Amino acid sequence: MHKITFLPHNKQISIPDGESIIRAAMAAGVHVNASCGGEGVCGKCRVMIEKGVVDEGITEKLSAEDLNKNYRLACLSKVRSDLIVRIPVESTVDASVLNTQSTPRRTAHIQQMDFETLKEAGLFVPPVEKKYLELPRPTHQENLPDVSRLVGHLTLNHGEHQLQLTLPVIRKIPDVLREQDFKVTATLERPVREGSKTRISNIQAGDTTDQNYAVAMDIGTTTIFGQLLNLKTGEVLSEYGDFNGQISYGEDVISRIIFAEKPGGREKLQEVVVETINKVLHKIITKAGIDPDGISTITLAGNTTMTQLLLNINPKYIRLSPYVPAATLYPPIRARDLGMDLGAHVTALVYPAVSSYVGGDIVAGVMGSGMYRTEELTLYIDIGTNAEIVVGNKDWLACAACSAGPAFEGGGIKLGMRAAKGAIEDFSIDPLTLEPMNITIGNARPKGICGSGLIIMVATMFEMGIINNLGKFDRDLKTPRIREADGVYEYVLAWKDETQIDRDVVLTEIDIENLIRAKGAIYSGYQTLLEEVGLSVHGLDRIILAGGFGSYVDLEKAMVIGLLPEVDPQKVIFVGNGSLMGCKMSSLTNRIRRDVGEVTKKMTNFELSETPSYMDKYVASLFLPHTDLDSFPKLKARMAARKALSPRA
Amino acid sequence: MHKITFLPHNKQISIPDGESIIRAAMAAGVHVNASCGGEGVCGKCRVMIEKGVVDEGITEKLSAEDLNKNYRLACLSKVRSDLIVRIPVESTVDASVLNTQSTPRRTAHIQQMDFETLKEAGLFVPPVEKKYLELPRPTHQENLPDVSRLVGHLTLNHGEHQLQLTLPVIRKIPDVLREQDFKVTATLERPVREGSKTRISNIQAGDTTDQNYAVAMDIGTTTIFGQLLNLKTGEVLSEYGDFNGQISYGEDVISRIIFAEKPGGREKLQEVVVETINKVLHKIITKAGIDPDGISTITLAGNTTMTQLLLNINPKYIRLSPYVPAATLYPPIRARDLGMDLGAHVTALVYPAVSSYVGGDIVAGVMGSGMYRTEELTLYIDIGTNAEIVVGNKDWLACAACSAGPAFEGGGIKLGMRAAKGAIEDFSIDPLTLEPMNITIGNARPKGICGSGLIIMVATMFEMGIINNLGKFDRDLKTPRIREADGVYEYVLAWKDETQIDRDVVLTEIDIENLIRAKGAIYSGYQTLLEEVGLSVHGLDRIILAGGFGSYVDLEKAMVIGLLPEVDPQKVIFVGNGSLMGCKMSSLTNRIRRDVGEVTKKMTNFELSETPSYMDKYVASLFLPHTDLDSFPKLKARMAARKALSPRA
Repeated sequence: MHKITFLPHNKQISIPDGESIIRAAMAAGVHVNASCGGEGVCGKCRVMIEKGVVDEGITEKLSAEDLNKNYRLACLSKVRSDLIVRIPVESTVDASVLNTQSTPRRTAHIQQMDFETLKEAGLFVPPVEKKYLELPRPTHQENLPDVSRLVGHLTLNHGEHQLQLTLPVIRKIPDVLREQDFKVTATLERPVREGSKTRISNIQAGDTTDQNYAVAMDIGTTTIFGQLLNLKTGEVLSEYGDFNGQISYGEDVISRIIFAEKPGGREKLQEVVVETINKVLHKIITKAGIDPDGISTITLAGNTTMTQLLLNINPKYIRLSPYVPAATLYPPIRARDLGMDLGAHVTALVYPAVSSYVGGDIVAGVMGSGMYRTEELTLYIDIGTNAEIVVGNKDWLACAACSAGPAFEGGGIKLGMRAAKGAIEDFSIDPLTLEPMNITIGNARPKGICGSGLIIMVATMFEMGIINNLGKFDRDLKTPRIREADGVYEYVLAWKDETQIDRDVVLTEIDIENLIRAKGAIYSGYQTLLEEVGLSVHGLDRIILAGGFGSYVDLEKAMVIGLLPEVDPQKVIFVGNGSLMGCKMSSLTNRIRRDVGEVTKKMTNFELSETPSYMDKYVASLFLPHTDLDSFPKLKARMAARKALSPRA
Repeated sequence: MHKITFLPHNKQISIPDGESIIRAAMAAGVHVNASCGGEGVCGKCRVMIEKGVVDEGITEKLSAEDLNKNYRLACLSKVRSDLIVRIPVESTVDASVLNTQSTPRRTAHIQQMDFETLKEAGLFVPPVEKKYLELPRPTHQENLPDVSRLVGHLTLNHGEHQLQLTLPVIRKIPDVLREQDFKVTATLERPVREGSKTRISNIQAGDTTDQNYAVAMDIGTTTIFGQLLNLKTGEVLSEYGDFNGQISYGEDVISRIIFAEKPGGREKLQEVVVETINKVLHKIITKAGIDPDGISTITLAGNTTMTQLLLNINPKYIRLSPYVPAATLYPPIRARDLGMDLGAHVTALVYPAVSSYVGGDIVAGVMGSGMYRTEELTLYIDIGTNAEIVVGNKDWLACAACSAGPAFEGGGIKLGMRAAKGAIEDFSIDPLTLEPMNITIGNARPKGICGSGLIIMVATMFEMGIINNLGKFDRDLKTPRIREADGVYEYVLAWKDETQIDRDVVLTEIDIENLIRAKGAIYSGYQTLLEEVGLSVHGLDRIILAGGFGSYVDLEKAMVIGLLPEVDPQKVIFVGNGSLMGCKMSSLTNRIRRDVGEVTKKMTNFELSETPSYMDKYVASLFLPHTDLDSFPKLKARMAARKALSPRA
């Protein structure tokens, strides 16, 4: 790590070796003009290295004189030592404004599951165990059936009772027993329901107890993520994600359901999702270099539609009012019966759902995050095209879903895109010149705007008064970057020649409107749910953000636009892919599998569309941050302070 | 029924209208010379109709004078009224001998399962029930998942708890619920284990409660028999039997096991047996004219090898010492997973076995005959190539198997054949002339001898002193019918021109030897088993004979040759295909499915080959009836009486 001091702001920040100066500046809350996303094209981010060593950062955009004075392009310069960096006058703003300027990006802290803690709490009880057995050989005096020999030995020597077997295992037993002279390893699958039978799910010759693996898999509408777990150590051996092959048949759940109604459509979608699952399985197995026969179990979670499609259950009635799912609890299923490339002994456990729009992915998050067994009153939000909300603790749980639209994933945004190379992911604006500082994923020239970047842009411009609480640009601002095109006002983030796409990258008022609608749906969703259960955000002990999007969102900015309520950011926890986490957790502790049935029964589902106050709350949320600015007291205070200081006041 | 009086014997018998006089004579114990089996070829069975009316019976074998005197051929004459029939002098024997002559054939009485009795005893509890339900439609206020709607209704309105579903049913639910406006019929499969969950195994639109069927199926080494049962009424709707397609790959279990060890052999045998099962299923469904979707369950039983082959479990170790089966209890299996043409909802229950040579067919017999829950001390014998023996009552059960060889099925007998058209199935002999009276199946010219006929021949000739207790013909008898051919003595049952096969039909001393070995194996088998458990045949309350053979065997004759012990014939019960009966019974009462696990645990298996006294007992049994004639006191008395009267004494 190196310490960077930015002058004249005198702000300091520590960043890892090799990071660029421009990212260091963004992290420190120091604005540097930068349109081209960090590829050195625009040449605007000239900074002077007053002390210390950087690599690169030299282009033809810098004159001989510049180089002589030790100027570098901030976007291309890699930090190699502690530095003192001066931002040239033309790139800085009035110091009085600087001091109230953007706070460092603060994303939620990641809740890591601590395997050792799990072990200490006695919760590390994998649902599948392996036991090595040396069975007595049959004789003329004692020629018990092979199965009785095995079961009897487990009962007498290992205290295992209530054992059951399925046909595929019985088929293996005679030959496997004799392969290494009656020395075998039995795989025991613990029952989900306490008091039920333990299943001998596999039998292998010799001692294979060190090969006991589980697969956790999140079946997302867009992506499928898999993890391979070592059940002996709790370790993640490998992981891999790929696009859900169903994407070719529809981007979202509704279009998939419609496709499934066509003749053969449902079967096709089932086939295709399993193809992707098999691709992911193959990758994680190959990456970890394990014997696939050692995989003992797979746990999957997805939203209700993804789950019904995986299981080849008609999803039609999920889409039609009154939105009825086929089932919420699914029995254990032989993975191979679903088409998965796994041993005949592998049972697939599929996370149960609550309703048509609160699916197994959310239940997995509730289970995996442990919110169902803590006293802490928690609000769990999975942000996506469909946002799901759960509130409660170990005593009660309520949930709801709302359609946020695809804005957070770049949908409905003129130059919106997924979080991929060339997406503007971070942003700052010079309050005087209104020149942008764009940071892109992969430091490539801008191609578009991703969800997290969009929130930062809108929040920043709103707080600076560049857009008003309706999301409209201040028509009086004098800058070529704000203009009207085809009757719509927009801000030019990057000029055509600085982009990858041969046209200007812009943020339009329609984009802002769509973002406001999306955040409004979510905000009013959890507000309605909280009200229905007689709570407010002030009563919450914790907010958990789930979903790929959640990991990148700047918490303060999300509060500025009114997506998140104004709470202590320390209360906000990010769990990443909650669905995958839930699958992982229930692979490591059988307690979750046992609890999940009760938990889903406990989760009271609210249909927001049937809750009259939802629409009122939604309409009141279609402002930045909200009609009621008093709900955002810190923002209100900052805006008042800024207004007093504003150079444009 | 018509009453027939035979003169000069003055014996009377009642027989059904249309029956032939020769069968009436055999039933009355009246000898009429008849070589050709009843086809009118030999012309020897001339009888005079003194009173009454017969149809037919006239051939060119009878002269005009004969016809004038009202002579008819007994084999061709159909009884149409009460009759007085005189047997001509040349066809009769000395009256004093007549009176001690063959007793009427007495086969065991058939134990019919009385469905009404079952109902009265509260035992009619089919394992699968159907319930018609009118579910509430979902609304915006109550949009529970389809499965919860169904399960909730069953719980609230029908007191059904602990319900579970499998994926194939969940898949059907959404569409079936809406097919007839949420009016459906649910099929409930009761658990085998008390306290376990009831499975909703099927769901159908509308009211289908009157269509609830079960299939019972016996998987024999040679034949497969199926029955279609109406679970509402207990009625047998149809039945059908066919040869097990595996026959092409080996006649007996050992040759099948050897074939199964060849590459692909096991899979082939599994495929082939399922083909036969499907043929039988198709036939019984078509014959009954039912909707196959109404079939709710199938129960199958077979010997251990047949069962392992059906389930595709390697049977190799059944054949190899120390004769270890893979399993004895099998889990419920989806019938379709075995390749059966049945609905996805149908579970196949396969009867458990006890050991490699006491299989599910025997357990089914023990269960179906009810011997496992009666106080009566019962000896159960299934006679076949492999004979299985069970002894015990509700408190204890012991079992053993012995290899009898194929004599009872016509194997190892020079002109032995299965019980098919042209097989001599009944026989009597003129003690003076030694002329035979052959009765064949289908009244066709003789082709060979079936098992039941063989026993009657050997018993009759032994009791008359024509063969001795070693099974050798009396060398002093003067008749062309007893002769030496290729060094072996034989009796000519029918001359070449009276047969279908263009050669004499004979009974040889080697045939008799083979029969003695077969009956000796069985007799010594149950004697050993009885001795091992500290009993003798005198302590038995009941003997149950099972197997196709058992239905035809003449009880007294079977006692004469020493196959059965000399007991009151009233104690002997015939249950026919015990395996099929057991499958039927457990389709009608779930109690059997619950009890069977305990019963098989209770059945102590004795390996006769490991019991030293077995060989001694076997050797002592290789006589007619046995070395120890005192064990057959009635026979001993009869033989003494006959000796005194014998015309050849």
